[in-house]
Amino acid sequence: MVNYPNLKKTVQTQTTQLKKQDTSRRGYDLEFAINESNVFYLVHKKANIHKKPTPIQVVKVDYPSRNAAKIVEAYYKIPSTTDYNGIYRGRYIDFEAKECQQDRFPFRNIHPHQIDHLDSVLYHGGIAFLLISFTNHNEVYLIDASYVIGKYRNAKRQSLAYQDIKDHGHIVKQGYLPELDYLKTIDQVYFKEE
Amino acid sequence: MVNYPNLKKTVQTQTTQLKKQDTSRRGYDLEFAINESNVFYLVHKKANIHKKPTPIQVVKVDYPSRNAAKIVEAYYKIPSTTDYNGIYRGRYIDFEAKECQQDRFPFRNIHPHQIDHLDSVLYHGGIAFLLISFTNHNEVYLIDASYVIGKYRNAKRQSLAYQDIKDHGHIVKQGYLPELDYLKTIDQVYFKEE
Repeated sequence: MVNYPNLKKTVQTQTTQLKKQDTSRRGYDLEFAINESNVFYLVHKKANIHKKPTPIQVVKVDYPSRNAAKIVEAYYKIPSTTDYNGIYRGRYIDFEAKECQQDRFPFRNIHPHQIDHLDSVLYHGGIAFLLISFTNHNEVYLIDASYVIGKYRNAKRQSLAYQDIKDHGHIVKQGYLPELDYLKTIDQVYFKEE
Repeated sequence: MVNYPNLKKTVQTQTTQLKKQDTSRRGYDLEFAINESNVFYLVHKKANIHKKPTPIQVVKVDYPSRNAAKIVEAYYKIPSTTDYNGIYRGRYIDFEAKECQQDRFPFRNIHPHQIDHLDSVLYHGGIAFLLISFTNHNEVYLIDASYVIGKYRNAKRQSLAYQDIKDHGHIVKQGYLPELDYLKTIDQVYFKEE
């Protein structure tokens, strides 16, 4: 068990309901937009893509009554894969979503084994990418994992600049239903020959 | 948040290490065998298949020190998908694993939305099945989701008999490395024409 690197997520879990009604919320809630879009895609039989639950190491469980389990001691674990995977048009889809407050995507925001995981997905013939949101620009980009992996493994690099991602990635349309139409971007990038 | 239907899993989380060395352990630990096999497959670049973390609703987190997060109140949630998914030979793989102590697989052991999920995976062109372990027989079967879904949605049925699964499923070879060679069974069932 480890300390969880990004405490923001914990808070999000509890405030998603709240945020939904909060029209004045600052910035763009990427995770929320993806999850809502996934529900839309699922219901409309476009794709079956889900966020994986946050991995938690349970240490102690109390049973206040016969059928109730209350976890009273647990810790966040470092995820060994990416957050999202599923199936679209018969293809395996796997991606990680990241929000950037600045004009760069720092590599410390992604774990080495997540990079290895994306590499493995590509090896096995899946579609692997990152969705990166630049809150300053109110833009979300889809960028293929192969590009990110190459730069990540280049020892000289500590981050990807906004401009790199703009040049090598593909902008994702934001809207209402779905909030973030990343399947359309997948169509353009990975199914363009069909 | 809900009560978790199967408390056994919680205990397993804490005793996996112990079980590993316990040669006298009773029955067959299906989850352990699958997880170990998945590690073998991943390392040998045969497939990339993972167990999803158990979904947990976090209610309260303490921060005993600046970088440490300790979850002090949380509850198990009913999973909305199956336990396992990933990619093999370019195909999306999705399955649920179940242990049966008796000579039948009771449908109450699987949630309706897990059945819907498997159905959706088939719709989108994925490979979907159940791995069912009969501890009495020391046998594990792979059975295609379409068969189980059909029987599950037949109102007269409450369970699948061991014999049904033996007749319509495919036995999975148990061994050492990997402990449960279910990819070989997938080859036979889903890739036989190639």
